[in-house]
Amino acid sequence: MGSLPDDQRRDSTASRSTLVEGVTLMARKRTVGVVLYEGFELLDACGPIEMLGNLPDQLRVVMVAQHAGPVRSTQGPAVVADWDFSDCPPLDVLLVPGGLGSRTEANNPEMLQWLSERAADAEITASVCTGSLLLAAAGLLDGRRATTNKRSFEFVAQTRPAVEWVREARWVDDGDMVSSSGVSAGMDMALHLIRRLVGNEASDQIAEATEYEWHRDASWDPFAARAGLLDR
Amino acid sequence: MGSLPDDQRRDSTASRSTLVEGVTLMARKRTVGVVLYEGFELLDACGPIEMLGNLPDQLRVVMVAQHAGPVRSTQGPAVVADWDFSDCPPLDVLLVPGGLGSRTEANNPEMLQWLSERAADAEITASVCTGSLLLAAAGLLDGRRATTNKRSFEFVAQTRPAVEWVREARWVDDGDMVSSSGVSAGMDMALHLIRRLVGNEASDQIAEATEYEWHRDASWDPFAARAGLLDR
Repeated sequence: MGSLPDDQRRDSTASRSTLVEGVTLMARKRTVGVVLYEGFELLDACGPIEMLGNLPDQLRVVMVAQHAGPVRSTQGPAVVADWDFSDCPPLDVLLVPGGLGSRTEANNPEMLQWLSERAADAEITASVCTGSLLLAAAGLLDGRRATTNKRSFEFVAQTRPAVEWVREARWVDDGDMVSSSGVSAGMDMALHLIRRLVGNEASDQIAEATEYEWHRDASWDPFAARAGLLDR
Repeated sequence: MGSLPDDQRRDSTASRSTLVEGVTLMARKRTVGVVLYEGFELLDACGPIEMLGNLPDQLRVVMVAQHAGPVRSTQGPAVVADWDFSDCPPLDVLLVPGGLGSRTEANNPEMLQWLSERAADAEITASVCTGSLLLAAAGLLDGRRATTNKRSFEFVAQTRPAVEWVREARWVDDGDMVSSSGVSAGMDMALHLIRRLVGNEASDQIAEATEYEWHRDASWDPFAARAGLLDR
């Protein structure tokens, strides 16, 4: 295997649920880690988890925080982080929610260092809403295309001009870095990730089972114009 | 106050955010209780909480379960119940999520008795998805109009024929009993509850801030036909 070029090696391990001459190749089970912190936005985390967490044969979803235990969301409920930064298992997908607490975490060196380390090993690092503020602060989005919450857009964008911030998008897929717009957009991005990692059929089935009208087109974004982001 | 007829007394305390001759009447702050149980569907609970929990001046959202502490959802994360059935504060709105665990809870006499007692005192009792299985089992929906998850519709409906089960609806508002269709429909119902309890402006603002394309029409339901519920 050591003699294979990198692109072939990646292809041989990252198998998909694909029908090849009548044979279904079993996809490797991936681990998705959702990073919690005080003041995260509840739906930023739980919307994507609803979608990703309904494919237990393909995806295992784990909650991680700097310190394990209950982590309080801005909307009230606390969600339990089962893992902390030191004992969290290897992550294939790293998902970072936004929320009011992201402004504090953008100045938390332990958070930023952990995100940098884990993103380096992850197949995909994804953010919802102002979760991209953290990825940007960690330097992970420099020279990359990304988006964020529409009402916080100008604030987030000015914190890191080295990022190519996209004003109008439900989500932006820049390969191993995927970012969504505000809150509810995380559900559409999560279904897109399922489409990428597991397949079209799985994403359609999850959307139907959750009675979610999903926006399959990443360019669908009526909120950008209404937030005044396209006026200049 | 004791000499007021009941309908006037209710009106005098349940004030709304209404502009009357230039004066904004402050709405009484209501408490919303979300009932958790093992195997609840994560978005059934967290979708509505995202909407209701973003109006802290008007609504206080609390988590309650038979036993306080972490309660595991089917999708993986545990959400913390801060209150148990005995110490839960008075609830103006009682919200019951669905999920695989609802089939067990429909046979839990302590759950059904607690729901009956609290619904009797609540202004609104609401269910998401198969949460209506529990309200039906408690006898709270007999002779009332209600809906449920579209893929579990026939199963839920046959458990309680005394309920007028509505096949095609995003949600059904039957006064003090409000029920939504599957999973994601809970967010639309929650915005409807905000519209009812706080006002149009508040529900529109929450939908826009969460970048949620909300279905304002309770009759919008493409999932009923696709689940084969309209074929007979």
